Amino acid sequence: MQLLNDETYMRLALQLAEGAAGQTGINPVVGCVLVKEGRIVGMGAHLKRGTPHAEIHALQMAGAEAEGSTAYVTLEPCSHYGKTPPCSDRLIKEKVKRVVVGSADPNPLVAGTGIARLREHGLQVDVGLLERESRQMNEAFNKYILTRRPFVTLKTASTLDGKIASRSGDSKWITNPDSRSFVHTLRHRNQAIMVGIGTVLSDDPLLTTRLEVTGLNPVRVIVDSGLRLPLAAKVVTDRSSETLVLTAANAPLAKRNALEAAGVTVLECGAGPAVDLTRAMELLGEREIGSVLLEGGGQLNGSMLELGLIDKALLFYAPKIIGGGRLAPDSFQFAGFDSMEDAIRLEGIRVQQFGDDICITGYPLNRNGVQHVYRNY
Amino acid sequence: MQLLNDETYMRLALQLAEGAAGQTGINPVVGCVLVKEGRIVGMGAHLKRGTPHAEIHALQMAGAEAEGSTAYVTLEPCSHYGKTPPCSDRLIKEKVKRVVVGSADPNPLVAGTGIARLREHGLQVDVGLLERESRQMNEAFNKYILTRRPFVTLKTASTLDGKIASRSGDSKWITNPDSRSFVHTLRHRNQAIMVGIGTVLSDDPLLTTRLEVTGLNPVRVIVDSGLRLPLAAKVVTDRSSETLVLTAANAPLAKRNALEAAGVTVLECGAGPAVDLTRAMELLGEREIGSVLLEGGGQLNGSMLELGLIDKALLFYAPKIIGGGRLAPDSFQFAGFDSMEDAIRLEGIRVQQFGDDICITGYPLNRNGVQHVYRNY
Repeated sequence: MQLLNDETYMRLALQLAEGAAGQTGINPVVGCVLVKEGRIVGMGAHLKRGTPHAEIHALQMAGAEAEGSTAYVTLEPCSHYGKTPPCSDRLIKEKVKRVVVGSADPNPLVAGTGIARLREHGLQVDVGLLERESRQMNEAFNKYILTRRPFVTLKTASTLDGKIASRSGDSKWITNPDSRSFVHTLRHRNQAIMVGIGTVLSDDPLLTTRLEVTGLNPVRVIVDSGLRLPLAAKVVTDRSSETLVLTAANAPLAKRNALEAAGVTVLECGAGPAVDLTRAMELLGEREIGSVLLEGGGQLNGSMLELGLIDKALLFYAPKIIGGGRLAPDSFQFAGFDSMEDAIRLEGIRVQQFGDDICITGYPLNRNGVQHVYRNY
Repeated sequence: MQLLNDETYMRLALQLAEGAAGQTGINPVVGCVLVKEGRIVGMGAHLKRGTPHAEIHALQMAGAEAEGSTAYVTLEPCSHYGKTPPCSDRLIKEKVKRVVVGSADPNPLVAGTGIARLREHGLQVDVGLLERESRQMNEAFNKYILTRRPFVTLKTASTLDGKIASRSGDSKWITNPDSRSFVHTLRHRNQAIMVGIGTVLSDDPLLTTRLEVTGLNPVRVIVDSGLRLPLAAKVVTDRSSETLVLTAANAPLAKRNALEAAGVTVLECGAGPAVDLTRAMELLGEREIGSVLLEGGGQLNGSMLELGLIDKALLFYAPKIIGGGRLAPDSFQFAGFDSMEDAIRLEGIRVQQFGDDICITGYPLNRNGVQHVYRNY
């Protein structure tokens, strides 16, 4: 049994937030627990962009009990008018006595302003309880709010010898059903899913979220420099989610018009003959896509990695060896490096098992080799 | 704190056995704990081939206290005259009251005879406590005793994209010092270490056990169909361990004579132009080599895997991505399979972390795809 203390309540607030992961769009997930005289009087989470924040839901549940209570909030209460009025004002108005904050606002321009406002009105504020958990939960939001570019999570599924298909291209299935369900959960949790045109041409995937329960479908993003995307492809004909095609300047105009007529949005990324992936991330950011799940083939994975555009990698390994040498595609296809010292390192390594599959999670270091991507945000 | 029960004492006996792993040569490791009236009166382990078995050491420590005691032995006490007199007779003679056995003798021809002998003389015998642990500890011995062929443990060190070197061949170092220390412990625990001539020509390794403390050096086994092994190679000039060269029938005789004159043993494996690896395992078995640590390059790993000669695989992954496509060697180089269904599966998957390195251990299924290699023995 857990001890009853600040951490226990904050952990519950984190769980409330975690529950809403994937459904707040470009907004962070936030949880709030109100405690008074030894018992919980309110709980809340931010559930959807444009709807009340976690604190408001919790205060509403508490009603008159809010007065004199302690609020455990995973993220600093806002102090500005956005789509909703500032939460700090509401906490003050309801006479909350103490506020325990998981982490300050990730935006350095506004960090601390909500906390300062609360303190000015005599509330006791303690900041930084389970800060790491709070920050990691919103790692995508934290990157986006600072850079306006999406946080890219790469997912690969390979054999133990690093192959994503056999020598003849067979890749169904490498990983087990448990791993694949988890990948669909990742789709629910990301605003967009991104693949290369090669994947579409060979597999004709739907790229939707298919789970035991209904999930949210991410926006489909197809990297297709030459606009080879067939009009009959499922990602074009299926309307369960929006489809964006990233293409190059000299892509055939007639095909572009046809795709747009079919309901697909085509985005020109850079002036070169191939999609400028760095520019593509800017364009996605401009469209308020703050998180992308990259389920690319080896080429796209390699290019994104080389360009430093992958923030987090989830590498699934099935317990099998397929062989096939150069005929069987690697999980990352790119020129690579001569010296092992120059290899792209991953930090914050975590290992999970899904049945007999192994998932290794890590954060690729930027090519300057110093900064932790996930620590910055 | 642990409860005091049969399992606790058997676990101690297993720890005694485990401590001697690597130093009993072709013999199993065995531990024994004698308990009487609530306290341990004797402990023993088999330490070296040709010296007393675990039970004898424990009985000697117990002296007159052995009478009426319970013996916890990880392996069925022997009932035959080998290099030492039978342990079951000694347990009877010392008037031990009860014997708890981890696992029966792996050899079906003699399994149960020691136990039967004890029971005939009125001792209570309970068999199978922590049996799995006991069997796994002697998995190499168990295979050898049944097949007279060595148990082969493969070790690879690769990047997350399955490469064992960069595009220019750089492989120093992929894994971290903790992983490398563990590999040296594996050398201590195996009777032989096996590499291909390619590894010798490119790295000129010593293939000895180098640890913080002194370890035992395995016999060095080099697969070298054309006898390209230089007389100046460290594995030839260094005398800290024996070196065996596995070669083919048509290898140059003059070179063979020169190597033998330099103290190397040359074994002809099969009548073909290349080393017959299946035959090679028979020859190693005939020389009472019951365990081999395979530290091959991709070619040798691939060939051994294809032939079903790998019993256990320890695959180390460093948290880095090196790229390089077809120029960077894969951990397993072999023709492979068209269908993902046909991939060679590993069972009994276990994951360990050494710092940020990940070690995935498993037992490749035989090519018939049914039998668990490790369950047979």
